[in-house]
Amino acid sequence: MKERACIELIMDEVRDYMVESYRRRMSFAAQTKEHPNDLLTEADIEVQKRVVSVISRHFPKDLIVAEESGLNGNPEAVPSRCWTIDPIDGTQNFLRGIFPVFGLSLAFLEQGKGSAGCVFLPVTGDRFLAERGKGASWNGKRLAVTRAASLELSRVEIDFQGPKYRSTTLTRVESLLKQAGQLRAYGCGVVGFCHVATGEGELYVNLGLDPWETAVGQLLVEEAGGRVSRLDGSDLLPFDGRSGVIASNGIIHDQVVEMCSEE
Amino acid sequence: MKERACIELIMDEVRDYMVESYRRRMSFAAQTKEHPNDLLTEADIEVQKRVVSVISRHFPKDLIVAEESGLNGNPEAVPSRCWTIDPIDGTQNFLRGIFPVFGLSLAFLEQGKGSAGCVFLPVTGDRFLAERGKGASWNGKRLAVTRAASLELSRVEIDFQGPKYRSTTLTRVESLLKQAGQLRAYGCGVVGFCHVATGEGELYVNLGLDPWETAVGQLLVEEAGGRVSRLDGSDLLPFDGRSGVIASNGIIHDQVVEMCSEE
Repeated sequence: MKERACIELIMDEVRDYMVESYRRRMSFAAQTKEHPNDLLTEADIEVQKRVVSVISRHFPKDLIVAEESGLNGNPEAVPSRCWTIDPIDGTQNFLRGIFPVFGLSLAFLEQGKGSAGCVFLPVTGDRFLAERGKGASWNGKRLAVTRAASLELSRVEIDFQGPKYRSTTLTRVESLLKQAGQLRAYGCGVVGFCHVATGEGELYVNLGLDPWETAVGQLLVEEAGGRVSRLDGSDLLPFDGRSGVIASNGIIHDQVVEMCSEE
Repeated sequence: MKERACIELIMDEVRDYMVESYRRRMSFAAQTKEHPNDLLTEADIEVQKRVVSVISRHFPKDLIVAEESGLNGNPEAVPSRCWTIDPIDGTQNFLRGIFPVFGLSLAFLEQGKGSAGCVFLPVTGDRFLAERGKGASWNGKRLAVTRAASLELSRVEIDFQGPKYRSTTLTRVESLLKQAGQLRAYGCGVVGFCHVATGEGELYVNLGLDPWETAVGQLLVEEAGGRVSRLDGSDLLPFDGRSGVIASNGIIHDQVVEMCSEE
């Protein structure tokens, strides 16, 4: 089985469970992780277990790096073949919110670079797929970023993070907050990347993303013709131990890097 | 016909058109209104026309105040019977975005106070209804705000407005931005109110709302047991010519008023 086929199989495999979990989300006892705004539910764990199970069955030798329970460290050396999983990116939105803005984020990486992956929004059924060199798609339709050149007319998505990191975030994005056209915060990393890749938005900025959240997002945006980098404009590599990402349509990228770089 | 029945009839009347318009949204030529981030489409105009037509048929003597084209002034005296319409609240989201975060906002006011109304999200089919003294509901289920008392654990929705008013907004909400637990910006006024009324969030803050956006939102939140006021904590009256609104679960309200009041 090819990696792409495995990714599609996984979406089919987890869909019913994710939809059904969302329907009974009021009954979930959320545990807190590092701080009270960092939540974990049994659904995160169960979805991860199912995804890991499918990957292990088809690619038993591949390394798996995932958000929940023990699989979430950066590997010591960059692995030749590796999968990153965020079972429910947007757990807060999974638990609360009128719109189901959360999804499975899954990527297959070769030599530390995203090679194939998906973002799957189970409730709406939206499937975002990307393969290095073969483009990105949304429910089968080929994606391309916008050609918008003005930040003042751009739709910008920002992740404000929890209160612990909020002040740092606000300082770094201060100029951007003032100049962005439409400002949105949907609170789900992969949806932020998808907004740029689909051309529904021009920019996504997040100061604290982990590899399992950036790998597929980066691939989607790059394959749609956009650009992804660290806040200072340097290359984003999922396992470099750094955080912070700017994903854009490419055209407004340098302007945003200048705004978000540290003084 | 009672007002409530008319409201339900209107939702049925506009649903298909709104869903179908959303499907072909890429083909809409958006006009700009006062500034480039203030958009108007033929769908806004058509939905308004249909809503006005139903109201006029059943209540020909009632005043109608609506967002688009000529019906959007504050009346000179507070009318005894009045309807407020925002045909598509969230026009930006109607045109762009992965999730359909926009809807019809409709209220019937007596002596300037919301008496009955709905928020209708046509794509998902969600119906939020409220009647003064009779409670608020979401798809038929009775609504109640949360009992959360800590701002640091609250889910907070903020409207950042367009770039023209952005700096003012950022200054007024600065402390709030730093202390709020989960920070979201979905870019649709009535959805902000609905988040509070449903208990999916604790707080919604917007510095620039018009009567056709506040009337039903206020009613929904108050009927769900929450509180709605101006930024300084004073009563919100739809036709007082002022703007700015705080809608909360009531418990955190005074704390937020203190933060958002002008120095």
